[in-house]
Amino acid sequence: MSRTKPAVRALVFDVFGTVVDWRGSLIREGRALGAARGIDIDWAAFADAWRAGYRPAMDRVRVGELPWMNIDSLHRLILDDLLKQFGIRKLKEAEKRHLNEAWHRLRPWTDSVRGLKRLKRGFMISTLSNGNVALLANMAKNAGLPWDVILSAELFHHYKPDPEAYLGAAEILGLAPAEVMLVAAHKDDLFAARHAGLRTAFVRRPKEFGPAGLDRDLRDDRRFDHNCDDFLALADALGC
Amino acid sequence: MSRTKPAVRALVFDVFGTVVDWRGSLIREGRALGAARGIDIDWAAFADAWRAGYRPAMDRVRVGELPWMNIDSLHRLILDDLLKQFGIRKLKEAEKRHLNEAWHRLRPWTDSVRGLKRLKRGFMISTLSNGNVALLANMAKNAGLPWDVILSAELFHHYKPDPEAYLGAAEILGLAPAEVMLVAAHKDDLFAARHAGLRTAFVRRPKEFGPAGLDRDLRDDRRFDHNCDDFLALADALGC
Repeated sequence: MSRTKPAVRALVFDVFGTVVDWRGSLIREGRALGAARGIDIDWAAFADAWRAGYRPAMDRVRVGELPWMNIDSLHRLILDDLLKQFGIRKLKEAEKRHLNEAWHRLRPWTDSVRGLKRLKRGFMISTLSNGNVALLANMAKNAGLPWDVILSAELFHHYKPDPEAYLGAAEILGLAPAEVMLVAAHKDDLFAARHAGLRTAFVRRPKEFGPAGLDRDLRDDRRFDHNCDDFLALADALGC
Repeated sequence: MSRTKPAVRALVFDVFGTVVDWRGSLIREGRALGAARGIDIDWAAFADAWRAGYRPAMDRVRVGELPWMNIDSLHRLILDDLLKQFGIRKLKEAEKRHLNEAWHRLRPWTDSVRGLKRLKRGFMISTLSNGNVALLANMAKNAGLPWDVILSAELFHHYKPDPEAYLGAAEILGLAPAEVMLVAAHKDDLFAARHAGLRTAFVRRPKEFGPAGLDRDLRDDRRFDHNCDDFLALADALGC
């Protein structure tokens, strides 16, 4: 390609897995709850099952089988099934709500906050997550994530990888798609963003899925503008 | 009223006039442009006329006479008229665009950044402005405004004082209206928020409209939850 690309002005970030360690965080919360309430189950399996339910639930919204529901609501649908499946019957409504909001309390990877602070000097930095705004805002407050803007699929009523989510983010930032770069640990997300005209940065997060995810494809792909090991390496690559 | 109100969780702020000094900032930008390009007009009158065009333009959107347009676009419509009206013919398109984006570069009142930093410790803090997201995000970056979230009427396609703007903000923050407090320098905005069920804090900004605005009603009103002289006084009142 010889056409000149415009300068990147904004970085938009996938969040679950890219910025925060959902699996480690959910296991920690589950074990703490289990110890407090005497619930002895495999919390790693519970975390994996919760996450596994997420994409199919979103896809039911994407194809119109469910009306628009935000991720808090989808997480709760899945949770209610899981509680039955794992034989957990003793939680009160307030405890279920608190457990569902574990997603608001996910912890960042060790490089995330430092990396975002550096990247923020050179770019507008925003979430672009399927998580809802309240979830992302609470998470940012809990974890000290220094976002300039909180953008979510919720604002466009289209979950990623629908193109409306990527194009909606660029439009609301007042930018052309090629002035916006998606940073993500998931290649399908990046390919969809690229297809919509955004720039792309792949960040490897080998521990995201625990031992079961070790055989995933984490290789560089030259179709992405950047391939990095963490946000600090991305900041180096972008000169921040 | 004897019913118990829930605790306030989020503060949402009107921006133009409440957080930033649009008039002083526009006059400063206008004079700088005038000096550079030899345009000798009354920039205070220009700023006042620009702002005066804003509410009628929004109202045309609110009643459906214009399709949804964001504030950047409405500012530009008004600007194009004003340039004719003030006999300014020498600006190139890029200069007009830069001038229109003076609204992205408005400067905060002297207490705004310090006050917001204190309030941010105790509450989720967000914009709730008729300004579009890109404008508010650029302004925050320029001025160092430490928002947790950038919310705008643009997200709801309803300009304040439509109730959808206030209720939409609460909903997207995952809160009940009574858990959200609007902070604003304009009583009509506060009354509309109150009518929608939000809490209210009036902040006096006597210099907002320059000498012409000195006879405005800046008195306390007991229907508001708070009446203050600046954001530091509000932080005191809220215990931050």
